[in-house]
Amino acid sequence: MTYEVAIVGASGYTGGELLRVLAVHPDVNVKVVTSREYANKPVYYAHPHLRGIYPASLKFKRLDDPDQLSDVVGDVDLVFLALPHKVSLHYVPKALEVGYKVVDLSADYRLKRVEDYKTWYGYEHPYPDLLEKAVYGLPELYGDKIRGAQLVANPGCNATSSILAVLPPAAERIIDLDRIVVDVKVGSSEAGAKPYRGGHHPEREGTARPYDAEGHRHVAELEQVIRDYTGRDVKVGFTPHAVSMIRGSLASAYSWLTKDLAPLDVQRIYAKYYAGKKFVKIVRGAPMPYPDVKNVYGSNYAEVGFALDKRVGRLAMFAAIDNLMKGAAGTAVQNMNLMLGMDEDEGLKNLVPVRP
Amino acid sequence: MTYEVAIVGASGYTGGELLRVLAVHPDVNVKVVTSREYANKPVYYAHPHLRGIYPASLKFKRLDDPDQLSDVVGDVDLVFLALPHKVSLHYVPKALEVGYKVVDLSADYRLKRVEDYKTWYGYEHPYPDLLEKAVYGLPELYGDKIRGAQLVANPGCNATSSILAVLPPAAERIIDLDRIVVDVKVGSSEAGAKPYRGGHHPEREGTARPYDAEGHRHVAELEQVIRDYTGRDVKVGFTPHAVSMIRGSLASAYSWLTKDLAPLDVQRIYAKYYAGKKFVKIVRGAPMPYPDVKNVYGSNYAEVGFALDKRVGRLAMFAAIDNLMKGAAGTAVQNMNLMLGMDEDEGLKNLVPVRP
Amino acid sequence: MTYEVAIVGASGYTGGELLRVLAVHPDVNVKVVTSREYANKPVYYAHPHLRGIYPASLKFKRLDDPDQLSDVVGDVDLVFLALPHKVSLHYVPKALEVGYKVVDLSADYRLKRVEDYKTWYGYEHPYPDLLEKAVYGLPELYGDKIRGAQLVANPGCNATSSILAVLPPAAERIIDLDRIVVDVKVGSSEAGAKPYRGGHHPEREGTARPYDAEGHRHVAELEQVIRDYTGRDVKVGFTPHAVSMIRGSLASAYSWLTKDLAPLDVQRIYAKYYAGKKFVKIVRGAPMPYPDVKNVYGSNYAEVGFALDKRVGRLAMFAAIDNLMKGAAGTAVQNMNLMLGMDEDEGLKNLVPVRP
Amino acid sequence: MTYEVAIVGASGYTGGELLRVLAVHPDVNVKVVTSREYANKPVYYAHPHLRGIYPASLKFKRLDDPDQLSDVVGDVDLVFLALPHKVSLHYVPKALEVGYKVVDLSADYRLKRVEDYKTWYGYEHPYPDLLEKAVYGLPELYGDKIRGAQLVANPGCNATSSILAVLPPAAERIIDLDRIVVDVKVGSSEAGAKPYRGGHHPEREGTARPYDAEGHRHVAELEQVIRDYTGRDVKVGFTPHAVSMIRGSLASAYSWLTKDLAPLDVQRIYAKYYAGKKFVKIVRGAPMPYPDVKNVYGSNYAEVGFALDKRVGRLAMFAAIDNLMKGAAGTAVQNMNLMLGMDEDEGLKNLVPVRP
Repeated sequence: MTYEVAIVGASGYTGGELLRVLAVHPDVNVKVVTSREYANKPVYYAHPHLRGIYPASLKFKRLDDPDQLSDVVGDVDLVFLALPHKVSLHYVPKALEVGYKVVDLSADYRLKRVEDYKTWYGYEHPYPDLLEKAVYGLPELYGDKIRGAQLVANPGCNATSSILAVLPPAAERIIDLDRIVVDVKVGSSEAGAKPYRGGHHPEREGTARPYDAEGHRHVAELEQVIRDYTGRDVKVGFTPHAVSMIRGSLASAYSWLTKDLAPLDVQRIYAKYYAGKKFVKIVRGAPMPYPDVKNVYGSNYAEVGFALDKRVGRLAMFAAIDNLMKGAAGTAVQNMNLMLGMDEDEGLKNLVPVRP
Repeated sequence: MTYEVAIVGASGYTGGELLRVLAVHPDVNVKVVTSREYANKPVYYAHPHLRGIYPASLKFKRLDDPDQLSDVVGDVDLVFLALPHKVSLHYVPKALEVGYKVVDLSADYRLKRVEDYKTWYGYEHPYPDLLEKAVYGLPELYGDKIRGAQLVANPGCNATSSILAVLPPAAERIIDLDRIVVDVKVGSSEAGAKPYRGGHHPEREGTARPYDAEGHRHVAELEQVIRDYTGRDVKVGFTPHAVSMIRGSLASAYSWLTKDLAPLDVQRIYAKYYAGKKFVKIVRGAPMPYPDVKNVYGSNYAEVGFALDKRVGRLAMFAAIDNLMKGAAGTAVQNMNLMLGMDEDEGLKNLVPVRP
Repeated sequence: MTYEVAIVGASGYTGGELLRVLAVHPDVNVKVVTSREYANKPVYYAHPHLRGIYPASLKFKRLDDPDQLSDVVGDVDLVFLALPHKVSLHYVPKALEVGYKVVDLSADYRLKRVEDYKTWYGYEHPYPDLLEKAVYGLPELYGDKIRGAQLVANPGCNATSSILAVLPPAAERIIDLDRIVVDVKVGSSEAGAKPYRGGHHPEREGTARPYDAEGHRHVAELEQVIRDYTGRDVKVGFTPHAVSMIRGSLASAYSWLTKDLAPLDVQRIYAKYYAGKKFVKIVRGAPMPYPDVKNVYGSNYAEVGFALDKRVGRLAMFAAIDNLMKGAAGTAVQNMNLMLGMDEDEGLKNLVPVRP
Repeated sequence: MTYEVAIVGASGYTGGELLRVLAVHPDVNVKVVTSREYANKPVYYAHPHLRGIYPASLKFKRLDDPDQLSDVVGDVDLVFLALPHKVSLHYVPKALEVGYKVVDLSADYRLKRVEDYKTWYGYEHPYPDLLEKAVYGLPELYGDKIRGAQLVANPGCNATSSILAVLPPAAERIIDLDRIVVDVKVGSSEAGAKPYRGGHHPEREGTARPYDAEGHRHVAELEQVIRDYTGRDVKVGFTPHAVSMIRGSLASAYSWLTKDLAPLDVQRIYAKYYAGKKFVKIVRGAPMPYPDVKNVYGSNYAEVGFALDKRVGRLAMFAAIDNLMKGAAGTAVQNMNLMLGMDEDEGLKNLVPVRP
């Protein structure tokens, strides 16, 4: 059986990556793609690497308004919304009305508490009931809920790497929940396909610099998940850094142990959460003791690891992902698989990491 | 039906790429991998991105001598030899004796004329009869012969990009065969996994510099193929350049038109040779008029294109490939598919280019 | 004695580089800088690396129209025009009227033949008399004329690398003047500070791709200089390539020898033109036989070299420069030194190449 | 007056950078350079960018043993030791005996407590009296002592960035001294000129990965300086990360405020320590609110900044340096200037940061 899907906002990097992944998915057909900038152009105008992968007959459709959604998209099983924040906001209720299953890749339905949208995104969320309905789409933690969901809010890339690193030790309370900091290193594709000064090659290549260091929105997702697992409100310091690569989000999180543990104890805690998770690799020992973004390039895998500095009592928690894959399109397809009743890794298992 | 294969010399970049490709091949099982450096270690010791992709039970076997080949490799349908030049030389006859089909990724059987080995590689070739038997493994040009071959010599990466760019205009004699130069830009993975000064990150990143500019061995393959198609001995100027990327070989070849042609005429000539070839994309017009190595990253595709400078009467001929894929492992698997009677693109069609 | 200069259009990369160079010039003071985008902002708003190098009191002035030039710039000895093509066009006559010496970094006064502006830039040049008056500002070739000039047209970066590579063999007619091709590899800073899609980090990093392959404007400068030296009209094939680095222009030019020469003969020809030229290094033999853009990074030096492929009779001619320095600001300051009667290398000799 | 200096171990990256800096120093002459690998070769064999900058007559001398030091080096005012750890160890006493002033760029004399060598470097330090005599060579903090010193131990690059970031808030005890973590991002040149697998271009480019995460030696220097200023033993968590650039060390340090402070209060604390320090720029506000390694490339400057996350009570402290300059050769020359009685910025002020 083949499912039909649509990608709304398919000309950006996330849209292109969804197309790349779905091109090798055995049971899914991309029926509709939309883009205003590339309306009526074939897919490869926005994604030159997909020339010949999709037929020239698959052209971007124009979609200007949520009200046109069902007319433009037609009869499909699931819709990916790869739209900017605050634009997706109004497409979601329309899509749900039509009866589509929805994976929303924006931030508009990730947070549960309506007041958090005021705090972090500066707007009054108009659909608080949908916030309740939405499932936070990190399948390694919320797989069961995702399976039955009509609306899944796909996590942010830096949130994903941070959560995968921090959650097991936090949930097990082996670290000081009041003293967590996260330092993320992220590639240039994270900011999207639209040129801007900080992303101009001469400005971005060779750099290592913090940004949004007084509070980056993705931390709200991390705090929400920790709260979910511990019942406690926590406040995490979070600092993303622009580094000189295209793909990759490496989260390095730090806290202090609340009890005396050996490395093997910590490893067991990670294993408790991730054993059997097909896309999480717990990295430890030879030949590379810690995660490396190069090891997950182009794939849906996450490498997770840690370092226990006994002298200091400090636990470093690491996770490396491809920000466009496990941090966006890969997880989105994983969510789709669950929502449509397929195996979680269908299609995705074809995407082996590319290295060197 | 599942075929069994072995990769001899599997710890280098070409070996790793064969493993990556074969991991998604539906009809092939990698039964044996050998490496002296990583003997008895699981695959991910050499290729950390393949952790979990292959079972830890697949360990590198030690193989020191051609005489041990059949003992170490056992019963398989085909052997990939990913060994250094002059080492592969003596493994080939042993492998053929056992009855294996062989794809040799070294240069040792690529040239037809025994004297060329003296000229380009500085040794007397000990098996001239096998040079005759070997088929030059560029499936876009020699597909029919490859199908029935027991021994296929896989082309060099820079030879592949150069041949794909130059051959159609040369074969059709629309360019001056005595005035061809090729300028290749190639990524750092081309030189293999072994560290050396020129490949050290601080020395290689940010560079653009020629090397081997007085005559690079890969030109012998290009000249041989042109001779094959035109019956003429030609001498081509060939200059590779190290540039600042990991993967990619871009050939820019130049010559002068022998008659007055319009761009469309040239395009037809490329189409004559490559129409229906699944892995060659002829690039022309919007949105990107010329090949880009980024468009084939991680895949077996080649982008081929050209630019006709009417004012000068000069034809620029371009081809962009991933040097580890279409330039090595991808073509090797394509050859294997043909030799074992499968569809040419089996497995390979799962590898969509990764961009950005 | 200290000279006063102004930089008109100082917020781009060329303007920034002029500021960097002049900061260490012992005899020159930057009195005025203009920029519309950064009007009234201190220099470091456009050039964050120059924070503290120039006083915060040096602010960009607004300059909207050539008629305001003398009012805004005031009393200075020399004006650098670092404006876009066709904008500089009308500033030059105004600056000359005021009596300023002028180094124009645009293309508007580089070509001698008025019809060339129609061909290459698509406009009717309104000041043909000034084209005659202007001196082409490549000091290694036109130093004597530059010394007495009021208007110097600073060469294009890719023209500079190409000319330095090709001119000696061309002028001495040891190569076939009808069969020259130039293949340039250039860094991302060449296209300027303004963000655009092809220069967006995810699109530019990791690439190697040709552009403007049917005829790039810089070739007109190369052809003009060859004509100057040989009295012959020549047509050169010219193909720039975007590669994955920020700075650097490497020209690889190819032609065929018209007589039988040994490498040492060719070397003597380069020496004839460049011996005693302070910023040209003829590279040959160990440890690096050919030019490398990394060896001139951040400096005004050019590395020039060649490779003679005896088998083919082909001469490869190479030159590597920093496109922002020898290809723009460095040469501009060298021209200024000559025009103001200082030593050619004043200030510039402080800028030793940065490597690795 | 011109001082004569020698560089012992001049063929590595630190040696090359010393040569680059001293080439533009008005009052210093490099009289002797030593290298075993490049013995009897001119400087540009190891440092191709310095071809023509130093005369071909300046050749590396061979020096195999500390006992040969004065014979090989002869009569100079100061010796830079740019040798590996544990090799420098025995050269220092010999150099002091001869009466040379010494700047030692190894780690062998940086730590004050003899037991720290056991802990961090695994050896029994044989010259505890010299540890006392040595001055830790961070001129921004220990300038007065450096002025009169005969032996200065030049800090580690990652120690330098970390100390510059952390010291003012730590010394003023506005942060929790028991809860400090440092996350460093460092370029590939840090590991030196010798090729190794992790530094091979295909392995290093595009990466972001932690290393030595269970305790990196440079933290001992940071802890020592904090102890110096606070009288307290502190233990800092420290995690370096290999990122995809050649030059640069960015330290991002995190702790929690011990009292309620506004950003301006924190800024005053940095200003208290760094006002008037010529090579420290406190970065704050537009246009770039935080340090960027690109802003100090090729120069001796450090950018220092911070971000106060009021919600969390967390202070992020940043410093960006060029690891070969402020992290090695630049500071070494700054120390030399002080030791020889020159202005601190002599020579160094000629090295304006190179950007983009």
